Amino acid sequence: MRMDSIIEKKRDGLSLSEEEIAYIVTNYTNDMIPDYQMSALLMAIYFQGMTIEESASLTTAMVESGDTVDLSAIDGIKVDKHSTGGVGDTTTLTLAPLVASVGVSVAKMSGRGLGHTGGTLDKLEAIEGFHIEISNEEFVNLVNKNHLAVIGQSAQLVPADKKIYSLRDVTATVNSIPLIASSIMSKKIASGADAIVLDVKTGAGAFMQEASEAEELAKTMVEIGKNVGRDTLAVISNMDQPLGYAIGNALEVQEAIDTLKGQGPDDLTELTLVLGSQMVVLAKKANTMAEARAMLEENIKNGRAIEMFKTFVEAQGGDSKIVDDPSLLPRANFQHEVKSERSGYITKLIADKVGKAVLLLGAGRQDKDSVIDLSVGAILHKKLGDSVTKGDTLFTIHSNVENNDEIVTMLLESIEIGQNKVSDTLIIKTIE
Amino acid sequence: MRMDSIIEKKRDGLSLSEEEIAYIVTNYTNDMIPDYQMSALLMAIYFQGMTIEESASLTTAMVESGDTVDLSAIDGIKVDKHSTGGVGDTTTLTLAPLVASVGVSVAKMSGRGLGHTGGTLDKLEAIEGFHIEISNEEFVNLVNKNHLAVIGQSAQLVPADKKIYSLRDVTATVNSIPLIASSIMSKKIASGADAIVLDVKTGAGAFMQEASEAEELAKTMVEIGKNVGRDTLAVISNMDQPLGYAIGNALEVQEAIDTLKGQGPDDLTELTLVLGSQMVVLAKKANTMAEARAMLEENIKNGRAIEMFKTFVEAQGGDSKIVDDPSLLPRANFQHEVKSERSGYITKLIADKVGKAVLLLGAGRQDKDSVIDLSVGAILHKKLGDSVTKGDTLFTIHSNVENNDEIVTMLLESIEIGQNKVSDTLIIKTIE
Repeated sequence: MRMDSIIEKKRDGLSLSEEEIAYIVTNYTNDMIPDYQMSALLMAIYFQGMTIEESASLTTAMVESGDTVDLSAIDGIKVDKHSTGGVGDTTTLTLAPLVASVGVSVAKMSGRGLGHTGGTLDKLEAIEGFHIEISNEEFVNLVNKNHLAVIGQSAQLVPADKKIYSLRDVTATVNSIPLIASSIMSKKIASGADAIVLDVKTGAGAFMQEASEAEELAKTMVEIGKNVGRDTLAVISNMDQPLGYAIGNALEVQEAIDTLKGQGPDDLTELTLVLGSQMVVLAKKANTMAEARAMLEENIKNGRAIEMFKTFVEAQGGDSKIVDDPSLLPRANFQHEVKSERSGYITKLIADKVGKAVLLLGAGRQDKDSVIDLSVGAILHKKLGDSVTKGDTLFTIHSNVENNDEIVTMLLESIEIGQNKVSDTLIIKTIE
Repeated sequence: MRMDSIIEKKRDGLSLSEEEIAYIVTNYTNDMIPDYQMSALLMAIYFQGMTIEESASLTTAMVESGDTVDLSAIDGIKVDKHSTGGVGDTTTLTLAPLVASVGVSVAKMSGRGLGHTGGTLDKLEAIEGFHIEISNEEFVNLVNKNHLAVIGQSAQLVPADKKIYSLRDVTATVNSIPLIASSIMSKKIASGADAIVLDVKTGAGAFMQEASEAEELAKTMVEIGKNVGRDTLAVISNMDQPLGYAIGNALEVQEAIDTLKGQGPDDLTELTLVLGSQMVVLAKKANTMAEARAMLEENIKNGRAIEMFKTFVEAQGGDSKIVDDPSLLPRANFQHEVKSERSGYITKLIADKVGKAVLLLGAGRQDKDSVIDLSVGAILHKKLGDSVTKGDTLFTIHSNVENNDEIVTMLLESIEIGQNKVSDTLIIKTIE
């Protein structure tokens, strides 16, 4: 096989065979195919796309490029969840304990990543003592015992994806649905998942701003999953405005606790229940979505969900007293209220702009060497469609510097107030 | 400026500015932009194309990447000619002396290149004593004195094109009309041409197999020429079958001599007159194509054309006695006649297949280190539409090995004999 002929084939819109894709991934990972041929191929894929079979072959070849996690010692069907990322997205923190509380085994590998706020690992580290440096054996034992444990992603997982992603990042080839789908699915599969639930966001605060693109991505991932023998479901949800009220690491832990107690924001609660129902069904703990949802709602009401959260935190060394005393979470030195300058209804609340303000406060990583401030962030007091009177508080900024003028300006620019009450739809579609 | 943003812009179908293109070419030539970004951009250009303005900016930026030849010491308008290459294409050897004989200054830089046979330089070296190692001063003096001299291409000419072409060659991005057009035009302009005539081939033996693609290439080059202030004309001609009867280096020199004496093949003579007329008009030695053609025809008849060839050969150290005694040219040890196995008309004569057979004989370079055998090649005895009787000679192979079975098979596969007389059109279109 010759790489130039493979590039030509894809350039001309033909499908690559499983063998050709394996050849590319293996040789690129081993530095036998140069970056300049790989980037030309990636651009050809950007334009010509890939069939589901090609995407599945790419996913499998990437999985095989490195270590895979063996979760066979864990009883039952291991269901993993992936979110394409948004602003104020606390879903993993609510979802994992909630489904574990009805007996779904959640063996979660999480990353830190770049973003407006930290990844799930960063958020959990807002809980004093909580640590993810546990052995694989301990990880398996904890899941078998409690149905839930979280561990950091192994560096040896899917090295092909790491190398290909770095190249895509500097060659304008990130935004290709088959490449995004294969990248996500390869990491989930290498992490040992038997079944996968995908939380695909769309709108101003999401990577996929167009709903049609989000849907295509979701469908592609679901089809890849089926093709490689993993039951996969997806939910497309709206991320025009931030999810929930809290954006920031410790602030989102607090919000997750409230949600597990049944006192969380409506949208975060609803998304958690929809994704959770899919996980419960995939784990075969319920036959229908309705049945699964009833189980989850019941466990919020009866306290088992928040109890599971406590158990999980304690098992990994964390101080579960934060559940009842949120003042034990890291707290920023200054709270600054941003007031509305006019009356009306919130007609726009641009997630992306809120996210950038919070990033500037220090809640997220601008590059991989950034140090996150777990205490900072913003609390929204109003969401889309809410009525506002001049002087009402729109946001509370949690900051460790006294002067937050720039942040105030950014937050005020994220919001539009008009005379008509608007509404949006949280759950756009579910894909099976 | 950032290369990733430039790639993204082109990927999304937007036009790049003159400044952006200059930035790319300068920094890529100086190793400041990595190959992997350049190849991604080239693939994006493959898909999105370039406007004439972009192609002209690219041409200019490439010209400015290295040395340019100053021909201002040569009187009159210097007209250069470029052929996109075909099989048995002897046009430069006939065209240059012919137009020089009516007073057009031809300061020709020629290459060796890869191909079924050698380049013009290789062919001329079939003449004993002929050399192209002359100083720039001598080159200019010879053109001023005789209207014609040939010199090798400077290695410092258009380094950007060399580097970009090497990358295109291994990333399936050769076949892009704006990239091909800019590459050709940059070399002609850096070589000091005031005006350019383009001989664009199409058909089985040509790089551009489709006439529509050849036409697009020709139009693009003519427009680039106008855009950068060089009068440019183009002729699109058919290269389904080889041009003329001779394919091979010494064999083609012989055919060029015959043509300049008025005894050459009809197709080679016609193409030489059409391209020659354009060169004469661009040099302002005639007002119309008809007038130019009459001047050229007259000089073939009255012997001035072949006299100019003798003068030119002698001026560069060659033995002009070959003009009257072709046995002085290198001659292969074995001549092998390939006979027809059936009767009918030649319905196909696939230039590309004949070319490959001749390449296998050793007439051309398979890679840049190949040594050419100037004596070998093939003579066609029949062309498209000719009638054939079983036992007629179709080809004479000129070879330096005794067993030529493989070549015979290849040549027989290049020809189809049927019952209907077919014809083709040599000159498909002229583009002004």
